[in-house]
Amino acid sequence: MKLYSYFRSSAAYRVRIALNLKGLDYEYAPVHLLRDGGQQLKPEYRELNADGIVPTLVDGDDVLTQSLAIIEYLEETHPEPALLPRDPIDRAFVRSVALQVACEIHPVDNLRVLKYLKHELKVADDVKDAWYRHWIDSGFAALEKRLARDKRVGSLTFGDTPTIADLCIVPQVFNAQRFNIDLTPYPTIARIAEAANQLDAFAKAAPAQQPDAE
Amino acid sequence: MKLYSYFRSSAAYRVRIALNLKGLDYEYAPVHLLRDGGQQLKPEYRELNADGIVPTLVDGDDVLTQSLAIIEYLEETHPEPALLPRDPIDRAFVRSVALQVACEIHPVDNLRVLKYLKHELKVADDVKDAWYRHWIDSGFAALEKRLARDKRVGSLTFGDTPTIADLCIVPQVFNAQRFNIDLTPYPTIARIAEAANQLDAFAKAAPAQQPDAE
Repeated sequence: MKLYSYFRSSAAYRVRIALNLKGLDYEYAPVHLLRDGGQQLKPEYRELNADGIVPTLVDGDDVLTQSLAIIEYLEETHPEPALLPRDPIDRAFVRSVALQVACEIHPVDNLRVLKYLKHELKVADDVKDAWYRHWIDSGFAALEKRLARDKRVGSLTFGDTPTIADLCIVPQVFNAQRFNIDLTPYPTIARIAEAANQLDAFAKAAPAQQPDAE
Repeated sequence: MKLYSYFRSSAAYRVRIALNLKGLDYEYAPVHLLRDGGQQLKPEYRELNADGIVPTLVDGDDVLTQSLAIIEYLEETHPEPALLPRDPIDRAFVRSVALQVACEIHPVDNLRVLKYLKHELKVADDVKDAWYRHWIDSGFAALEKRLARDKRVGSLTFGDTPTIADLCIVPQVFNAQRFNIDLTPYPTIARIAEAANQLDAFAKAAPAQQPDAE
């Protein structure tokens, strides 16, 4: 398998963790999101990924896009260790936590949205930074409220076993820390990310450990 | 089952289609997103849905959030008719189309993002409208490119059988049409939405057919 990735991409980071947890070897193909006007926007790459985003996973002749679709595919084709619980209601809980990050926080802070704010709306850097923080803070506040009171939460989102929820939380916490967002109001989220990062599969997937890290 | 919904919410619309396709009866609980400063933001509703968004599905004692997690739950608990193909690679294709809409287009045009643009960034209405159109146009352009050349596409996204991809495309096309976005550059998307809307389950889920329609 070959993973088109950028070391700091939150969506690629999720897939790297999944591949590591499943013990799957892969070739790392770096796509630099800021160099050459964005290598992800080049026609060659867009043949693989029409949206011009990372990650893309190539498995034999198959080209897979969208991190959560890729992770569900890995789960179905390499069921062990499972990244989703067995019971449908618990699976829905775990998926909804993953989607809270992947749909409510991450897309609004995506690189191309930030670019549109800067180049089309001509907002100042401090306004753009406030935007970035706002969606993390409002999203984390909602997520913290859920996690703090759900009895299924253990050292990780679902007991002590890594699930797709943790795969989404850890990269989002990385982004928050990179922007110096105070995590004190989100103790459960911070604690889950810290516990997950103790695991090899998460540690090896970290941006600083990637071949294209700067 | 009880569905907290708003007639025009794209995410609630997805779940209504899924419930109809599965032939599941449900009670409709309207949450008016614009009335009373947003009924979705009231503390009572936020007890069910911390993000303060629709939909929420209550099934017995269980409270489910995030439209795609709800739909996967319905798929697992009521497998027939299936809303996902059988083969993992085809499932990944269908899920990735759904996520292209649910992660790349919809969140950036969500009500609370538009509110932030208006109230925090103080942008003019025409700039806000251009923003709305931009994310639909750029997202549909990428999606059209994929769908136009994928041999699995039939009258619907995956052959002629409704899948979770169609459940996401139809509400997004509804939004686009509401904002008079020209769909001529996206003939495959427009054709899929038109074919899906011929089906009872889609037609009955349309905003105009809901009890809270205005």
